[in-house]
Order: sequence, then structure tokens, then C-alpha cells
Amino acid sequence: MISSQNLKIHKVENFTLKSGINLSLELSYLTLGELNENKDNVIVYPTRYAGTHLEQGYLIGEQLALNPKEYFIIIPNMFCNGVSSSPSNAPSPLNGPDFPLITIQDNVSFQYQLLKEVFHIEKIKLIVGWSMGGQQAYQWATQYPKMVENIVAMCAHAQTSGHTHVFLEGMYAALTSDLNWNNGKYEDQPNAGKTTMAMTWAGWALGQNWFREKLYLKDGYKTPQEVLDKLWRTIYYKRDANDLLAMIRTWQHHDISDNDVFKGNLEEALSSIEANVVLMPGINDLYFPPEENLQEVKYLKKGSVEIIPSN
Amino acid sequence: MISSQNLKIHKVENFTLKSGINLSLELSYLTLGELNENKDNVIVYPTRYAGTHLEQGYLIGEQLALNPKEYFIIIPNMFCNGVSSSPSNAPSPLNGPDFPLITIQDNVSFQYQLLKEVFHIEKIKLIVGWSMGGQQAYQWATQYPKMVENIVAMCAHAQTSGHTHVFLEGMYAALTSDLNWNNGKYEDQPNAGKTTMAMTWAGWALGQNWFREKLYLKDGYKTPQEVLDKLWRTIYYKRDANDLLAMIRTWQHHDISDNDVFKGNLEEALSSIEANVVLMPGINDLYFPPEENLQEVKYLKKGSVEIIPSN
Repeated sequence: MISSQNLKIHKVENFTLKSGINLSLELSYLTLGELNENKDNVIVYPTRYAGTHLEQGYLIGEQLALNPKEYFIIIPNMFCNGVSSSPSNAPSPLNGPDFPLITIQDNVSFQYQLLKEVFHIEKIKLIVGWSMGGQQAYQWATQYPKMVENIVAMCAHAQTSGHTHVFLEGMYAALTSDLNWNNGKYEDQPNAGKTTMAMTWAGWALGQNWFREKLYLKDGYKTPQEVLDKLWRTIYYKRDANDLLAMIRTWQHHDISDNDVFKGNLEEALSSIEANVVLMPGINDLYFPPEENLQEVKYLKKGSVEIIPSN
Repeated sequence: MISSQNLKIHKVENFTLKSGINLSLELSYLTLGELNENKDNVIVYPTRYAGTHLEQGYLIGEQLALNPKEYFIIIPNMFCNGVSSSPSNAPSPLNGPDFPLITIQDNVSFQYQLLKEVFHIEKIKLIVGWSMGGQQAYQWATQYPKMVENIVAMCAHAQTSGHTHVFLEGMYAALTSDLNWNNGKYEDQPNAGKTTMAMTWAGWALGQNWFREKLYLKDGYKTPQEVLDKLWRTIYYKRDANDLLAMIRTWQHHDISDNDVFKGNLEEALSSIEANVVLMPGINDLYFPPEENLQEVKYLKKGSVEIIPSN
């Protein structure tokens, strides 16, 4: 059902980023199902870190949460993911390490234009996303409160925590440890750096309980070391290094209150949300621990936290 | 009180490691206080990962837990820490990357010889240690159950978990990402690799709550990034790279049941311990989460878990 064959492109010339930079950007997106006459069956389902539309299939199907027989599902590829405009596909002089920072706010502003200009959509039934996809859902609900009816943010926070900033800075250091990286002006992909990042990321992605309960056996791995050797060493090879680094910067800058409206007041930003909000942290998540969501929900008009159990 | 001036050396020729390798090893140790006539006031206080006797002062003093007026405190430097025999100070051909794996069991066997041969000690009142120091305390209680009266293992497990194995493999990958590492045959220290390791380690050492509650402000840092830049970037520069890597391998191999006596049966190893055991995990510890200790205590004859609060 999910394939690149039906990808469409929405291009905006002279799009102005939050930073003030003007540039031409292309958003690659997929639609599934049909927009009904009332235009009230819209679901927006943004992508995650290092993911594309191709990794979004797990929630979509007639028996699954997102049923394309019923809903018009739009999957926008996040900028810098290698499919939409990214360091790896931008024209000179904004290519590679010279591609500007694109924030979650920029992603959402652009998606808004797509929905308005191409589909003339006024209401969104649901925005759902995982990890950075959930950040986009949260951002949508703050940025366009009258337009968004429901959001589900799985493993995502309204603001990147100091701890996550530090974790991500470590991942940045790991990838750029490769001499071939050459400050982003590489000729060949710095795959050794991607391996270093993957090896240092693995412990974060796979929590203590996953090992304690030996869940890796269910997934066909005999030992923790085998998980590293067979699953993780090459996991980022299919992504471009500058794209991976740009998405780290996007993640680090995520803060729904960091704008002229809320001026850094997170409580005010959360209180402004009109949508029903369901926050779904993983109970053992190491970079999106439930505690932040439990703090956030206090300020939401219509919010709840549904903690995902570990197995 | 703690200085290198009074370091003593215990040397054993032809010491046989668990692996069967025979070599000459030197243990550098410090003693504080006086051994009393009954030899019943002995405290052993082994060192932690990347630590030496110089970092052990925080528990020692007349008003602190380890009072040298009352106790005879022995601080053995763990092998591979750069003070006792280590890759960085061993004579050829066992120097650098050719230094053999030394297990926690080997460390404890050697410390046993020191106590017996030099001081003729039969009973140890207390063994206390933090992190890898706590592993040594746990190992002592299993290996010499009749000799050890009490242990306090702070942030330490009886067996290195699969998750910690993976976390440590990531740290190994980070340090060795430096081209200057040259498979351990470096001429200059691979300090870029040590920075990469420090940057990827920081998020593990400083838990989510430390950032959430902005405890870094108390320590004089304005932002999470400043913690990285001022505290972490150069934190391992004073240690030798092969020493750091060797201690990672020691840590990964830690398992009190991995020997001919217990043959991998952890429950049996725990049940064999005669000492009073106090396990002190940190409530938010990311590589020694309390869960493992709470499992372990079920099999201890005289054990308790005292969880350390976060601030």
C-alpha cells in the first residue's frame, strides 16, 4: 500500500524559514484514501527521525488504526529526510552542510500551505506521529489550534529536554568522528561514522527491560552482541550523513513555545491547544520518558496520557 | 588525606588469570588508619571505572562513613586503571592492546593475596565500592564468603546486563572511532576518540531528571550544552585509551556466577553469599537501574536494597 510510486511534490518558491532565510523547498508527500465532500476525514501522519513515508505502513490498513477506506491520509515527508528537500538533494549553494536549519515549526508551516493550497482543507480530524512525527503533531496543535481536532503524539515531547539535547549531541559527535566526514564535504558517505552513531544509539533505542526480559530472543537474536552486529552496525547506511545531522539539529531545536506568540512560555503554549491530545509515552523510553508528558498534560485543556507498556 | 605519596605496591610473579594466562602483576594500593591487634577493623574500598585511589576521598574522613581513626582502610587500584598494572604501564610484549583481559574475579583474587600475604587478614568488616568498585565488593562476597562480613555495593550489579553490554560496546566504538587509535598502537593519545566517547557517555551518566530539575544550575552550568563543553569534552584525556578500553572489557565480562563453582547459575551464586549485603542503586541510574538489584536481593540470605534518591 505504501510505495514511492505515488509520491507527489508540493513546491514553494521563496518559502521563508523561521530563521528568516528564504529558499525554494519541495515537500514529497503521499496520500491514501479519498478526501470526502465535507473534507472532514483528514488525517495527517508525519514521518519520524531517519524515516520516510516507506516506514509509515505499520498503522495503516483496513483493520488498523488508520483506515484509508474511511480517511484521507496525508503522509508528509519531514524536511531533511532525503525525500523532501534535504542537504543530500538540495541544489548548490544550499546543499550538504550548507543546507539551513529547518525547524519543526517550518515543517508544519509548509504542511499547512500544502493542505490549504492543494486540498483546501480547513479541519484536520487527526494528526498522529511517532517521535519527531509526534513533535510535528504537537506543533500543529499549537500553531493552528482552530484547525486541529485531535492529535496523538507517540513518544514525543512538546519541547526537547536538556537530557535529549545532550544525548543528541553525543550522536552528532559519533557520526562526525569519521575523518571522511570532512565537515560535511565528503565524497564518499562517512559510513564508519554512521556505524559509530548506530553503536552508541543502540542502547538508547533498546531499553534495559528489552534485554532484561530477553525480548531479543523473540526477534531472532541469540545475544545482545548479535543485536549490535546484525541489526545496528549498518542501520544508517541507507541515509545521507548530512541529512542525519540536519535532523538532529531539527530535533534539538524543537520547542512549541519558542516563537513570537509564546516567547518561551511552555505552559502558555500548552494551554493554548484546542485539540484533544493523547500522549503515548513508552514506559521504559530512555529519551522520551513519561515524566515530561505527565508534566505537559497538566496544562492541556483536553489531554490524557496513555503509557505504552514495555512488551 | 588521599595522595599518591603513600602508595604501596604488591607484586606477584606468575599470577594466573582466570583465562589461564600467566603474568607478573603489580597492584598499587593505599592504606589509611591502623590495623588493630585483632585484625577485625578492615575495610576494603576498591576503585571505579576510570578512577584511581585519588577519587576515593569522598567517603573517607572522621565525620564520614569511612573513618580512618577507627578502621584500617585498604584502597586497591583496579587493574587497567593506569596505576596498578595496565596496558599503559605493562612491559612489552604485554603492553598496549596486547595486555590480556583481566576480570573482576582476577582483581579480587589478587586483592585476596595482598590481604593474606602482606597483612595476614582473615576477616573483612566491610567491602564498599561504587560502580565497578561495587562489582568487586559483590565478587569478594561470592568468591570468599567466609571472609567477608558486610558489603555495600553502590550502583553495581552482580552480573553485567545485556543492556549495559550494548551501552559499553557503543562507548568502545566511540573511543576507537579515532583514526589515531591505530588498533591500540598509537603514538599520540587518540584524544578525539576520547572526546567522542565522553560526548556519547554524558547522557548516560547524567540522567533525565538531572536536566529536568535543572540540577546543572547548582553545579554552575547555564545550559546542558555548557555541561558538555566545560565538563565532558576532555574528561578522559588524563587516562590512557587502551586502559579505558581494557576496563570496558573487564566491565562487560563481570558475572559473579561465571566460574567453575557456579557455572553460570546466578541465583546459586547469590544464595552462596554469607555477608550482609546492602545494594544502593540510584533511582534514575541509566546503566545500573534498581530493577536488577531488586531481582538479586530475592536470592540473598541477608540482603537489602536502599534506593538512592535523585537529588
